[in-house]
Amino acid sequence: MADVTRRGALGAALVSAGGLMATTEATAAAAEKEGDELTAFRFALGKAKEQLYDGGMSRQATADNFPVSRGIAGVYMQLQPGGLRELHWHANAAEWAYMLSGRARTTIIDPEGRSQRVDFGPGDVWFFPRGYGHSIQGLGPDGCTFILAFDNGFFSDYATFSITDWLAHTPKEVLAKDLGVPAATFTAFPKKEVYITKGPVPAALPAEPAPGSEKSTPLSHRFRLEAQRPRTFAGGEARFATVKDFPISTTMCGATMTLKRGALRSMHWHPNADEWQYVIAGRARITVFASGGRASTVELNAGDVGYVPMGYGHYLENIGDDDCRMLFVFNNGVYQEIGMAEWLASNPPELVSTNFGVPEAVVAKFPKQEQFIVPPRKP
Amino acid sequence: MADVTRRGALGAALVSAGGLMATTEATAAAAEKEGDELTAFRFALGKAKEQLYDGGMSRQATADNFPVSRGIAGVYMQLQPGGLRELHWHANAAEWAYMLSGRARTTIIDPEGRSQRVDFGPGDVWFFPRGYGHSIQGLGPDGCTFILAFDNGFFSDYATFSITDWLAHTPKEVLAKDLGVPAATFTAFPKKEVYITKGPVPAALPAEPAPGSEKSTPLSHRFRLEAQRPRTFAGGEARFATVKDFPISTTMCGATMTLKRGALRSMHWHPNADEWQYVIAGRARITVFASGGRASTVELNAGDVGYVPMGYGHYLENIGDDDCRMLFVFNNGVYQEIGMAEWLASNPPELVSTNFGVPEAVVAKFPKQEQFIVPPRKP
Amino acid sequence: MADVTRRGALGAALVSAGGLMATTEATAAAAEKEGDELTAFRFALGKAKEQLYDGGMSRQATADNFPVSRGIAGVYMQLQPGGLRELHWHANAAEWAYMLSGRARTTIIDPEGRSQRVDFGPGDVWFFPRGYGHSIQGLGPDGCTFILAFDNGFFSDYATFSITDWLAHTPKEVLAKDLGVPAATFTAFPKKEVYITKGPVPAALPAEPAPGSEKSTPLSHRFRLEAQRPRTFAGGEARFATVKDFPISTTMCGATMTLKRGALRSMHWHPNADEWQYVIAGRARITVFASGGRASTVELNAGDVGYVPMGYGHYLENIGDDDCRMLFVFNNGVYQEIGMAEWLASNPPELVSTNFGVPEAVVAKFPKQEQFIVPPRKP
Repeated sequence: MADVTRRGALGAALVSAGGLMATTEATAAAAEKEGDELTAFRFALGKAKEQLYDGGMSRQATADNFPVSRGIAGVYMQLQPGGLRELHWHANAAEWAYMLSGRARTTIIDPEGRSQRVDFGPGDVWFFPRGYGHSIQGLGPDGCTFILAFDNGFFSDYATFSITDWLAHTPKEVLAKDLGVPAATFTAFPKKEVYITKGPVPAALPAEPAPGSEKSTPLSHRFRLEAQRPRTFAGGEARFATVKDFPISTTMCGATMTLKRGALRSMHWHPNADEWQYVIAGRARITVFASGGRASTVELNAGDVGYVPMGYGHYLENIGDDDCRMLFVFNNGVYQEIGMAEWLASNPPELVSTNFGVPEAVVAKFPKQEQFIVPPRKP
Repeated sequence: MADVTRRGALGAALVSAGGLMATTEATAAAAEKEGDELTAFRFALGKAKEQLYDGGMSRQATADNFPVSRGIAGVYMQLQPGGLRELHWHANAAEWAYMLSGRARTTIIDPEGRSQRVDFGPGDVWFFPRGYGHSIQGLGPDGCTFILAFDNGFFSDYATFSITDWLAHTPKEVLAKDLGVPAATFTAFPKKEVYITKGPVPAALPAEPAPGSEKSTPLSHRFRLEAQRPRTFAGGEARFATVKDFPISTTMCGATMTLKRGALRSMHWHPNADEWQYVIAGRARITVFASGGRASTVELNAGDVGYVPMGYGHYLENIGDDDCRMLFVFNNGVYQEIGMAEWLASNPPELVSTNFGVPEAVVAKFPKQEQFIVPPRKP
Repeated sequence: MADVTRRGALGAALVSAGGLMATTEATAAAAEKEGDELTAFRFALGKAKEQLYDGGMSRQATADNFPVSRGIAGVYMQLQPGGLRELHWHANAAEWAYMLSGRARTTIIDPEGRSQRVDFGPGDVWFFPRGYGHSIQGLGPDGCTFILAFDNGFFSDYATFSITDWLAHTPKEVLAKDLGVPAATFTAFPKKEVYITKGPVPAALPAEPAPGSEKSTPLSHRFRLEAQRPRTFAGGEARFATVKDFPISTTMCGATMTLKRGALRSMHWHPNADEWQYVIAGRARITVFASGGRASTVELNAGDVGYVPMGYGHYLENIGDDDCRMLFVFNNGVYQEIGMAEWLASNPPELVSTNFGVPEAVVAKFPKQEQFIVPPRKP
């Protein structure tokens, strides 16, 4: 599986917590002393244990089952037509989602009491800021599948709050007072969290809202990612959803990428964010470089999740026979990267020559500018 | 006492540390495995051990004696006429205060060397940013009582720095050099921290400052909260001190509320802050909903402190025979809330019906908009 | 050595982590219970173990060997003429540097692919934001010595990423694809991290860049600190490099100071930052006041590092026979301080009198305004 090079244990995982560095690494320093293994940077989400519900199912990757992923957790979810991920909120994380297939409708409310109800199709993205109440419902004819990502690897442990759970644990006479109905009304309500339930597929949204029917959020929670014109390269293409184009998403951004057969997403690192990866289709090779002589080279297959802590060097290479399609999520609204080839090109050849102890003639052949996705070499 | 529903231990407490989520919850995840009890959300500050001094007394609630309160600590303090809470600063927390009774005078200095000296009466609020030097003195005829809140539950452990303690631990020849007087001068100075001492009641402040006598802070540290026009509701009233109206208070905000007999502060949560509660008068019931099937319903009496971690659902119901008066403090200058009834109203009735598995006719009776304080139901 | 007054252990160290207070102090609270000793605030960097390389050497002070220094780590480095601190980046810290002697050239790249190559002489400062790729090379005739400071005390443990280490742990066929050369090219490359190597001294920079040769960073990474007009005082002088004058340095600032024989940098604290000190020349006495009756008075000699956690009271007194020259680094781009004498002067004399239990006539002799550096008293 992993080519684990040298000592590391929790260290690699713990270097990644961004603003929490100081405390996190204090823990890491202690952890380093306990073990010699580099943590795993890959998790087979597609093979993780399913949670099955009446109206859908989910699988999750959190810091619990995928320890390196302290900064970002992820969920694969499927909703049947009419399947409803009930009204809920997350106390400790924002939610970023990518529609894999089918159609869904979400509702959301913000702290000003403004709301949005909107439909999503394949390739659409949503962003719900931390603590905002929301729901997701599968539409016809096929329901939907999507990936959820959260900007906190510990999001799921007692930090997801569902409306049925709340009402079930509140005295009925308080509910009665709050909602202006008799306490007996709530005898028929769920006794515990519903999580995903099922109802009729809702009707199409009206083409135009009825007069006086809305109190709209000022920024849309939907971004039509795959509808964007891609950045194209000889080796593939990429689309980005960052805070510049999707302004509600202040704490996360994301991208999708197609690597042609044999193509390479070139070597780089992100100075400001962890990276969470999901393989939609195909096979890729990645080396996560963790400093201190430590690196891990693994193969990612469809349904696998990869994780690259902030500042760690990496590349992705399509090693399959077909296109490789990947989804990327970052725990920062601003996308930043520094590419290795561009970095070398920005330095004088004599410095690069000294650095590697090789003649200048060698480094003179290196490219003069970055290629984001490098096509396969001609034989 | 508490209706503790299910496992939780430190978990509930630890979910609350705001920007520190990731690290905090890592600890929480470990803690969860150790116990099955939900932490206590109530602390009887009025019955806590008193610290007695020549010029006053104090009782405190910190993360040490009230473990859930990691984000906000609180102190009840009483100063006699002329009683002086000596010159000091807090290295790790800002200070927000509410005057319960009597009159006090504070002095404060900021990092630009600008200062303010101002008097406070019942219902006034002060805010001192983290690290600013300040003092508090009781005035005549009765001294004063007040509540202090700090935006760090760990504020008191080696993070309060008093002038007498500092000078007592500095070589006398250094003091002499710094203050331009002979070293022997300091033989008469206190040998250890004074904390609260007593002197004459200071004279009234001049109606107008003498020419050239001031180097004033640009923003006032005083906000006359009870002098504000309240937000009024059928069930009571509320006043807020947020950064919008009290601009120095960037990291904390607060409110007072009166709930009439039988009235309900309706179900809601705060997406951006922990909530610290103090019962000034009366009796209230609260359910703190902690997700994952966990909730705690307790009764709060005068002098009790309650704590609601960020994102936790809750309400407050006056269950006494008289008005209930409460003080609220949040560890964010911006006040945000999402109300349960408003949330339900913002969703289509068919979705709410599906969510709860009840006919639409039931949810059609729910209110169409939020009531901040709900009056008691007519029998 | 240290005048350790009362219990404290890790507590003092842990109070200092700025935005990480809550979590940090939770740990501190536990640590307090384990020991009774105040942590050391001094580290003999000049006597620390050397790391020797072909082209230079380094000594470091991090939270590993100097536990109090959780917020700022430091390194003393020497580069021979042509000695190259290779291309690298720091995943968890920005870098602030002060040139002690000689000349050096740095290269840096930012996330927009913009770069700067510039020379440094004695008294110059650089700032490299977290995660930016950079290199440092000694110039002729004497190479150089400099101090590096990082805004994370844990920066060195698996958080420094070197280009040779990265390439050595990446499959050769990936390197070949990325850099457009045959895989065999990399057989001659280093098998492990080079860290510091040596090459020819590079030629002088052109007086003017060739047309079309640059993609420049918008803000300079160099600040000529000693070239600035100093703030002068009867007892010495000081120069500051803060974000106001050196705008790239958003997360750190620094200063140098000369204290004349017997002079005192007066008593003060910093509300917003930890302070890292390095004695360039001379001898100084410092008392670090840690609250709760705890303080540590130590002597700092040339080559020693001192550390003052955020909010801790302190002074520095030249106790040698010559000028004392010191370097200061803070983990905040904005410089803030509150001076003790100015604080007392801003309060009414009767309050100060009450606070210390001494007659007003005593405090009336205290200075009416701050002296940043106090000259020695006339005998």
